[in-house]
Amino acid sequence: MTERVVLAYSGGLDTSVCIGWIAEETGAEVVAVAVDVGQGGEDLDVIRKRALACGAVEAEVADAKDEFADEYCLPAVKANALYMDRYPLVSALSRPAIVKHLVAAARKHGASTVAHGCTGKGNDQVRFEAGISSLAPDLKCIAPVRDYAMTRDKAIAYCEEKGLPITTSKKSPYSIDQNVFGRAVETGFLEDIWNPPIEDVYDYTENPATPREADEVVLTFEAGVPVAVDGKPVTVLQAIQQLNERAGAQGVGRIDMVEDRLVGIKSREVYESPGGIALIAAHQELESVTVERELARYKRQVEQRWTELVYDGLWFSPLKRALDGFINEANEQVSGDVRMTLHGGRAVVTGRRSDRSLYDFNLATYDTGDTFDQSMSKGFIEIFGMSSKIAAKRDQAQ
Amino acid sequence: MTERVVLAYSGGLDTSVCIGWIAEETGAEVVAVAVDVGQGGEDLDVIRKRALACGAVEAEVADAKDEFADEYCLPAVKANALYMDRYPLVSALSRPAIVKHLVAAARKHGASTVAHGCTGKGNDQVRFEAGISSLAPDLKCIAPVRDYAMTRDKAIAYCEEKGLPITTSKKSPYSIDQNVFGRAVETGFLEDIWNPPIEDVYDYTENPATPREADEVVLTFEAGVPVAVDGKPVTVLQAIQQLNERAGAQGVGRIDMVEDRLVGIKSREVYESPGGIALIAAHQELESVTVERELARYKRQVEQRWTELVYDGLWFSPLKRALDGFINEANEQVSGDVRMTLHGGRAVVTGRRSDRSLYDFNLATYDTGDTFDQSMSKGFIEIFGMSSKIAAKRDQAQ
Amino acid sequence: MTERVVLAYSGGLDTSVCIGWIAEETGAEVVAVAVDVGQGGEDLDVIRKRALACGAVEAEVADAKDEFADEYCLPAVKANALYMDRYPLVSALSRPAIVKHLVAAARKHGASTVAHGCTGKGNDQVRFEAGISSLAPDLKCIAPVRDYAMTRDKAIAYCEEKGLPITTSKKSPYSIDQNVFGRAVETGFLEDIWNPPIEDVYDYTENPATPREADEVVLTFEAGVPVAVDGKPVTVLQAIQQLNERAGAQGVGRIDMVEDRLVGIKSREVYESPGGIALIAAHQELESVTVERELARYKRQVEQRWTELVYDGLWFSPLKRALDGFINEANEQVSGDVRMTLHGGRAVVTGRRSDRSLYDFNLATYDTGDTFDQSMSKGFIEIFGMSSKIAAKRDQAQ
Amino acid sequence: MTERVVLAYSGGLDTSVCIGWIAEETGAEVVAVAVDVGQGGEDLDVIRKRALACGAVEAEVADAKDEFADEYCLPAVKANALYMDRYPLVSALSRPAIVKHLVAAARKHGASTVAHGCTGKGNDQVRFEAGISSLAPDLKCIAPVRDYAMTRDKAIAYCEEKGLPITTSKKSPYSIDQNVFGRAVETGFLEDIWNPPIEDVYDYTENPATPREADEVVLTFEAGVPVAVDGKPVTVLQAIQQLNERAGAQGVGRIDMVEDRLVGIKSREVYESPGGIALIAAHQELESVTVERELARYKRQVEQRWTELVYDGLWFSPLKRALDGFINEANEQVSGDVRMTLHGGRAVVTGRRSDRSLYDFNLATYDTGDTFDQSMSKGFIEIFGMSSKIAAKRDQAQ
Repeated sequence: MTERVVLAYSGGLDTSVCIGWIAEETGAEVVAVAVDVGQGGEDLDVIRKRALACGAVEAEVADAKDEFADEYCLPAVKANALYMDRYPLVSALSRPAIVKHLVAAARKHGASTVAHGCTGKGNDQVRFEAGISSLAPDLKCIAPVRDYAMTRDKAIAYCEEKGLPITTSKKSPYSIDQNVFGRAVETGFLEDIWNPPIEDVYDYTENPATPREADEVVLTFEAGVPVAVDGKPVTVLQAIQQLNERAGAQGVGRIDMVEDRLVGIKSREVYESPGGIALIAAHQELESVTVERELARYKRQVEQRWTELVYDGLWFSPLKRALDGFINEANEQVSGDVRMTLHGGRAVVTGRRSDRSLYDFNLATYDTGDTFDQSMSKGFIEIFGMSSKIAAKRDQAQ
Repeated sequence: MTERVVLAYSGGLDTSVCIGWIAEETGAEVVAVAVDVGQGGEDLDVIRKRALACGAVEAEVADAKDEFADEYCLPAVKANALYMDRYPLVSALSRPAIVKHLVAAARKHGASTVAHGCTGKGNDQVRFEAGISSLAPDLKCIAPVRDYAMTRDKAIAYCEEKGLPITTSKKSPYSIDQNVFGRAVETGFLEDIWNPPIEDVYDYTENPATPREADEVVLTFEAGVPVAVDGKPVTVLQAIQQLNERAGAQGVGRIDMVEDRLVGIKSREVYESPGGIALIAAHQELESVTVERELARYKRQVEQRWTELVYDGLWFSPLKRALDGFINEANEQVSGDVRMTLHGGRAVVTGRRSDRSLYDFNLATYDTGDTFDQSMSKGFIEIFGMSSKIAAKRDQAQ
Repeated sequence: MTERVVLAYSGGLDTSVCIGWIAEETGAEVVAVAVDVGQGGEDLDVIRKRALACGAVEAEVADAKDEFADEYCLPAVKANALYMDRYPLVSALSRPAIVKHLVAAARKHGASTVAHGCTGKGNDQVRFEAGISSLAPDLKCIAPVRDYAMTRDKAIAYCEEKGLPITTSKKSPYSIDQNVFGRAVETGFLEDIWNPPIEDVYDYTENPATPREADEVVLTFEAGVPVAVDGKPVTVLQAIQQLNERAGAQGVGRIDMVEDRLVGIKSREVYESPGGIALIAAHQELESVTVERELARYKRQVEQRWTELVYDGLWFSPLKRALDGFINEANEQVSGDVRMTLHGGRAVVTGRRSDRSLYDFNLATYDTGDTFDQSMSKGFIEIFGMSSKIAAKRDQAQ
Repeated sequence: MTERVVLAYSGGLDTSVCIGWIAEETGAEVVAVAVDVGQGGEDLDVIRKRALACGAVEAEVADAKDEFADEYCLPAVKANALYMDRYPLVSALSRPAIVKHLVAAARKHGASTVAHGCTGKGNDQVRFEAGISSLAPDLKCIAPVRDYAMTRDKAIAYCEEKGLPITTSKKSPYSIDQNVFGRAVETGFLEDIWNPPIEDVYDYTENPATPREADEVVLTFEAGVPVAVDGKPVTVLQAIQQLNERAGAQGVGRIDMVEDRLVGIKSREVYESPGGIALIAAHQELESVTVERELARYKRQVEQRWTELVYDGLWFSPLKRALDGFINEANEQVSGDVRMTLHGGRAVVTGRRSDRSLYDFNLATYDTGDTFDQSMSKGFIEIFGMSSKIAAKRDQAQ
């Protein structure tokens, strides 16, 4: 029986050419798999047919938008996941979601190998391959761009030579990856890190500098999960989508950064994640109200490690599972409402209320009703500072 | 010889009353000490004379603005210090600066005790007393508001009874602490955490929602120290002051949060720190360009601990000193320019350049000149993911 | 109705005197509660009757040995809990176990207050009171030794005056706390930290320097839980008891240290924990075999925080619960056998076997059968070291 | 001019064969460099002459024993460096020391490449190559065993064919790496992790089970540096050597473990480090006496990261330098004497004294002279436990 290779298929030029290219390089049959994680663009059925037209022996398409929101974006919100304190892991979240479908297709179609269209200098190759080897340690991985030197010029030539049904006319200056949680853009002139981004690179967000009316939104969470927007019940996917639209319209969620890639280099990246940034801002603030101090302090460290791990492609790793155990426990009480003003590129929390709140008006107030026993403080300070004080005595005697 | 008490004196009602109150409670002579950390307001000499008029046997005033900027604000910038990812430690930075002057005055005037005007439910009492016991373990601390039940009403009555030269007419609804690095505001109606702040609470910042022209600024750092604004050399104090003005004019640096106090309660706090937020944003981005990845990842944890420690009043502690050892080493190469747009409440970095940059165009580019050897990646991924893969094999065999 | 106070009762002089002392100080009725956590000594019923004879209105006794082993010692083994890398938390584990019974008794008997016999300079007062306030925030706490200045001399005088049925003849030079997980000893001559402990301070362990035959034991764990000793099924309590005997007979588990107390001072402590040390040594080694590297590395940090938290008396805290979420997940695969030699004060692992092992002979061997693909390493090293290399290039150009 | 390759030369079969092998593979001239880090064995001059006899164009030998002790072992002692809480980094410390000499020789002799004899599945290849690329980013690295498939059998054949002056008679069953800080042994029968080590694998240590007299030693440290043994001044090297002898004679420092290698696999390792283990035990205890609690707690985390980093071959990395900044600051006060009993495989501290001690007898004692103000504790406990208590109230209302 002929070997089979499952290919992560986008419908674009590169992965369309990969179908034939892989077949020629390996002698295997290619099964194309396209996964909708909210990237928009063409209809899944159109993509499926194009894969077959390009020579795939089978083509699978999956609407994974809700799965992506529930199982990948939501944990990132619970973890307030911002790589380098800024980037909400947009592409890093979609890769494991796609990997799961690739592996399922490999099992279904008896494939021995999974292929993807990534280059050899980015993070996504690691996310695909480390993910696949963790879900299916027996599967091999290939990346034609990296392993078979498939450049864009060669791909266009191949496409024209074989008469593949793909438009190759003009290359966009942008390299884009997008899904419902956000959008990543790379392009040549941004490789000079002194150059500012131009408006043209953005698609999910309006210009924050344009004067417009502010938008006020109330988000409701239950145990860390967004469950309503302005009081109307939503799925996680709907929460992201509605905030993409509303926060995007106010220019919220643009990120321009120099980023530490797993492969050891620094790269300039521009992202948009209006829904992601708004959700995380609201979730963080609700945690401030409902999570006890020491748990909150430790959770920041756990969040950082979780985020690095996911960025680094280790979604399906034992450490990730154990950190999730911590994070889920920490989110048990993160329930309540957060009111935010979306405006001028900012998502600003202006109010919070929760029946799980740890904010105690009577302990906090300086007005009538104050129940805080200030006489306790002297003893607290004395003992809290004692180890430093003893060290100071020693150090000053030197 | 009569005992002496050094009092942290602000010139306001509470600490003016404290002078006589402490004298009556303890039989000691009171030495008033006022320290200018950029809080603005009255002239230091006016304050000095008022202290004497209120009964102080001595009154010392010190212009500590440059000292505060260089020795307290600058380390916070190097540490990207944001408590709970938001608050740049405004008051927590000024307390140790003031403590140093209080202790010096106690030594000079032979005092056995230091007094401050804090209540017994806030952080500042800890910062004063832990600071004092670490610089001068032999000194005692008293806080008349906490220890002698000196309420505001009693203070006003005392003031009127003694004819002290203080206006007690109407109480501001706001409790304010400010210095050159920022401003903290508490007030009754914000104790309902669902209430949004009103414009009236702000003083260092304009309304970010007001349409206006953006301001572009270039900041230059050397080894983590801001040394020029738009190419013109500045001291750290000048950098903060100029950015307070320019970022403040664009509404940058407003913070509204529910905060975990050291004394175990959550409180609602509103802050403004236009200069602090702008400086930290620029510094963080320059670190992204000049600090190696593993150092940068670890530094985030160190920053968090540094920030908690300073928030908690342990500025003069052995751990703080050792963390500074790490942070200063990490800032050695943080030199270069950062261009920022100040607008609509946001300080957005749009460009960076540095001769200490670790961004390597030839490794990062996808265009001509790419020197990254992609053939290395396959081996990297295989071994990087191996421990997870071996665990996956085991887990799936279960 | 008369107020009631629940007293943590040991049967000894101090807490026997507390019964009447508290009644006199507070006017309340005293309910005595004695909890058997394996401390040995008198029969529970004897203790119960003595409490009543000393004036308690009610006396409750509970055999909590299995509960203590399963719910308190076991989590400590899973966390490899060694405070300051040495001390297996003996007393810190028993306090929350006792607290649970005190609170249950307070509810049953309608008490408003809980009392304990601790002094005001140790950790145990915090463990009792922080524990009680976390299980029953409405209950008050009192500590007669600390709050009513009940010294030992006064206690003896009281005892004799009231004719309480307690022997007060001669004071042991040792202050001892013990339970099935170990034993803590303090005594005057050890307060000089240059003095070595003498044999007389030890009770759970024989002198390790005495020549004797070694003992070999095989421990079996399932998901981190010790389930068999030399192939014979055991409860956790039995595992600890059997190892106390066998490891204790070989002098295993003596600890002599200078310890950082929560109240800010350093103290000299001598402990014995033969079963605890042997179990943790075996468990750690089985983790080395069955836990993936990144999870194992992170778990060390989590273990340290867990241990500090428990030492500090915060057993019933939100952070403890979330850390348990992590630790339990990490122990899922910690199953298998560990063979140890107990001898000369050491518990040395000499073999491990597990069907959950991640040790792969074929990847590890340098002999026939080696499946490790060494050609992958060059790429791995190149990319693994790249960020350092780029930084080196920059630093050397300086 | 002919290219030159600097080879890390041991004088043994493998690296002797490498000289000719590399010359044939690359056409380059080979410069042999042997570094004495206390591994014992042959005289350096004998080794130098053998290298020349095997075809090296130049041969350099260096006595780096003091340099190794001062610059590599000492930082490990200050960091209490125990990988996986057990292994004192023996080989991981020597590699960067050797790398420094290799790079210096490459510069002196105008070499473009450095070669080493490691296989492709261990840690040492990474330590060599990451070290070299951080000291000399322009140098290339080759490893004939890994890159040119130079197996042992081929090496013997080559040796006989060329008549190299090396004895190839019988292969030891052991693969050994040793230096003054310790010794690592691998061998086939230990690859079954259920097998116990046999006495024959050990060389630096006597059997701990043999009855013998205990040895008592007093170590003196200044700022973390061992400066005297039993009151007699020593260099760091002498301290290690003397303790190797005395602790080794008592069987101290044997380690048998399953270890997580950087290349992703677990391996069985047996080590001996009598001097290393004794020094670290003493240093840790002196830190307990002289380092303030919060600094000590944080230092444990820093130590773990330092140890992982060095194990992983990143000695010359920016993060290592910044961690050293922390560790050196933390060791400033670690001065004083530690008395230890060496016996039966254990190095047990029995006394400590220091004029930098933070142990305060008057605060610690329960006898006459107690200066601890117990009345402070109630307030401390109340506020210390408050955030947990507030959370408990909330959680129980659920």
